[in-house]
Amino acid sequence: MNWVKDYVTTIADYPKPGIMFRDVTTIFESDVAYNRMVEEFVRHLRDKKIDKVAGIEARGFILGGAIAHRLGIGFITVRKAGKLPRETHSVNYMLEYGEDALEVHCDAIRKGDNILIVDDLIATGGTAIATHELITMAGGRVTDCVFIIDLPDLGGADKLRAKGCDVFSLTAYEGE
Amino acid sequence: MNWVKDYVTTIADYPKPGIMFRDVTTIFESDVAYNRMVEEFVRHLRDKKIDKVAGIEARGFILGGAIAHRLGIGFITVRKAGKLPRETHSVNYMLEYGEDALEVHCDAIRKGDNILIVDDLIATGGTAIATHELITMAGGRVTDCVFIIDLPDLGGADKLRAKGCDVFSLTAYEGE
Repeated sequence: MNWVKDYVTTIADYPKPGIMFRDVTTIFESDVAYNRMVEEFVRHLRDKKIDKVAGIEARGFILGGAIAHRLGIGFITVRKAGKLPRETHSVNYMLEYGEDALEVHCDAIRKGDNILIVDDLIATGGTAIATHELITMAGGRVTDCVFIIDLPDLGGADKLRAKGCDVFSLTAYEGE
Repeated sequence: MNWVKDYVTTIADYPKPGIMFRDVTTIFESDVAYNRMVEEFVRHLRDKKIDKVAGIEARGFILGGAIAHRLGIGFITVRKAGKLPRETHSVNYMLEYGEDALEVHCDAIRKGDNILIVDDLIATGGTAIATHELITMAGGRVTDCVFIIDLPDLGGADKLRAKGCDVFSLTAYEGE
C-alpha cells in the first residue's frame, strides 16, 4: 500500500451518510509524513518551468506554501468570495446544493505565467476547474496540478488533463 | 524603512472606514519577498526546540506550511468552528460584534509539545490568545509566536509575552 495511506484518517459517513471523508490533517501533523510528502512533490516539480503556485483555500495553502518556498517562487491565494481586499476575478462553481464563488486578485498573475494549482484532494474537480478558469481569466496558463489524494472515479483529474494540465497525486482511492 | 513594508499593500478604509488594512498577499506573490520572509523566520527559529507549528486559518497556513517544512517538523491546523472532522478542543473568542470559535484536533498535540503559533498579523491578539488557550488545553506549551506584521499599539504581542511566549515579527506599524 502507498505510504501516504498510512497517514490518512478515513472518517465514515462524514460530513453525511455514505461519504468516506479522507482527512489529511494527520499527514500534516506528522513530521516524517509532512516532510516526505513535500519532498515527493518537489521531486516531481523541480525541473518544470513554473512561475507561481496557486493554493486553494484552505488546505491547499499549507502544502502550497511549502512547495512555493522550495521552488523559490511566489504564492497566489485562491479564496472564497469576499476574502480578498483588492480587485478580483471571480468564478462561480456548483456545489451539491447551490453554488459558491472563488476569487483571485487581478494583479496576482502576469500574462503568460505558468501556474501550478495545489490542493489536498481532487474529486469531481469543481473547485480545481473553477481555479483553472480564474487563472486563465487573469492571463495565466495552468501547466500543472498536484494533489495529495485523487478519487479518480469522480473524474476531476481527467477534466484537468483534458484542459492540457499535467496532474500528479501521491495516492488514489478507487471505487468511490 | 523595513524591506517588508515595500511589499505590503495598504488599503485605506477597508473593510470599513478608519481601518488601514495591511494586505500581505503581495508579499506572498513576490518570489523574492516570499522566500526572503521565510528565510528570516527560519533564521530566528532554527536553534529553538519547537515540536510543531500551529497555523491559524487561513493566511497562517501559507507561512506556517513553509516554516514547518524548513524546520522539519509537523503542522497543526487551527480552524474556524465546524471545519475539522475529528474530535476537537474549542475556544470562543470575541469579535467586534458577537463571537466566533477556533478549534484544534484533540490528538494533534502530545503532552509537553513545544508549539510555535504562526499568523500573518497580530493586532489585539484575539485569535492568537484563543489559539494559545486551545494549545494549552490540548497539553502543549506555546513557546514561540511569529507574525509578519505587529500593530504594537493594539497590545496583542504584549499579551502573548505576558503568557511567557517569545514573540517575533518582521515589521511593525505604530500608531494604529
